[in-house]
Amino acid sequence: MLIVGELINASRKAIGEAIRAQDAEAVKKVAIDQREAGANFIDVNAGIFVGEEAKYLQWLVKTVQEATNAPCCIDSPDPQAVHAALSVHKGIAMINSISLEKERFDALLPIIAGTDLKVVALCMSDEGMPETTAQRLSVADRLINGLVQNNVPIDNIYVDPLVQPVATNKDFGIEFLNAIAAISTEFKGVHTMCGLSNISYGLPNRKFINQAFAIMAIAKGLDGLIINPLDKRMMANLITAETLVGRDDYCSNYLRAFRSQVFEF
Amino acid sequence: MLIVGELINASRKAIGEAIRAQDAEAVKKVAIDQREAGANFIDVNAGIFVGEEAKYLQWLVKTVQEATNAPCCIDSPDPQAVHAALSVHKGIAMINSISLEKERFDALLPIIAGTDLKVVALCMSDEGMPETTAQRLSVADRLINGLVQNNVPIDNIYVDPLVQPVATNKDFGIEFLNAIAAISTEFKGVHTMCGLSNISYGLPNRKFINQAFAIMAIAKGLDGLIINPLDKRMMANLITAETLVGRDDYCSNYLRAFRSQVFEF
Repeated sequence: MLIVGELINASRKAIGEAIRAQDAEAVKKVAIDQREAGANFIDVNAGIFVGEEAKYLQWLVKTVQEATNAPCCIDSPDPQAVHAALSVHKGIAMINSISLEKERFDALLPIIAGTDLKVVALCMSDEGMPETTAQRLSVADRLINGLVQNNVPIDNIYVDPLVQPVATNKDFGIEFLNAIAAISTEFKGVHTMCGLSNISYGLPNRKFINQAFAIMAIAKGLDGLIINPLDKRMMANLITAETLVGRDDYCSNYLRAFRSQVFEF
Repeated sequence: MLIVGELINASRKAIGEAIRAQDAEAVKKVAIDQREAGANFIDVNAGIFVGEEAKYLQWLVKTVQEATNAPCCIDSPDPQAVHAALSVHKGIAMINSISLEKERFDALLPIIAGTDLKVVALCMSDEGMPETTAQRLSVADRLINGLVQNNVPIDNIYVDPLVQPVATNKDFGIEFLNAIAAISTEFKGVHTMCGLSNISYGLPNRKFINQAFAIMAIAKGLDGLIINPLDKRMMANLITAETLVGRDDYCSNYLRAFRSQVFEF
């Protein structure tokens, strides 16, 4: 399971203020905390700083990597900002995210084509956000093919079928889950990943819903998540879910987590 | 989701003692508690009383139904005990359970054939316990056909693919889950149900594992469970899981549960 820590996002008040104040220690602490909690990649986002995104995104990458050995997940649709961030990044970064929207696809493809970069590929096209499993599969098909034909290895592609709120339509959860299963089955070697929290939008007790939905998505084949790794119960659920779907030889990860008190909340 | 409350089982010390002492009040309390917590059926089991099972099972049915309006899930492989229990049962009972083992199938079929009884059909044959999805599907196929050909409506059949411990084999969880999906897809109208707790046998923190596994099984199509309905977190997870797979119009069950403090543990 690939875990992307989502907390270093300028739209969060404390992070936005830390970036504006160039408070490296505050950013480093959040990076270290996420890394220690199990994040494989640290997401960096400076999207609120219009006109200064490239500068601040670059600063975030430097700051995060000074504090940790973690690779970053460069969270921007702006090719200039992504370029600036990559120019200082050490190791293999993940780009978050390309989509089938023509403008976005054309802007980001030249950065990704022929590289070792990992890329989040959103199931979004100029026709809008997909609602059904079939619509997601259709966008995923064109997106995966477009990337692979431009020398992006399929193993570096993380398709995000895009979660929509179950409070809006009772079938939005199952349509997403079936898309995870269909994409994992139809495109051998591709990965799937997503942010979860949209599923519970508009409902009370959101963390509880998000955790159950993560477990379901893993049962359907999901192998990446953009989450808050400091949510201990979520992390314990992910470890348990992976054990239950055959990804944990001899339950050794589960037992190690138990001994490390991961299940004590 | 059909919930069978599992607590009135003579192998549990307090219940065994209550049966021996003919302590109707103790049994009634457990029946009422389970019913109020959301059980659709109350399982009754007197299996430890060799030679007296029929008498005690009959007493359990009378006692449970004096206290609640709930139908019972008659938990015995012994046709005489099942007959005795059914002779006093009001409403439509569930028989727990038939299997493809020849002796058991032949003994219970005459009781079930041509009736309105619901029946749990275990994926067990004289060849032993199945391990893979394909083995379970093969047993389910013969079992469902055997029942349907003997005038058991498919809607009354609850196939239990039989959970085995993930600590024994890392693939035992996913093979079970894929069997739920395959049976639900291949046999339109049939139900699936199971007890869960075997999945976590041999591991620490079992309730946590069982809850995650229940959520996964619902994502795969499971629509019945034999559980302890007094486990509040389990019940909250089941309500949430059903909402997430499109079984809850307007999230109304979820919201009602939230207002009833189901999510306060």
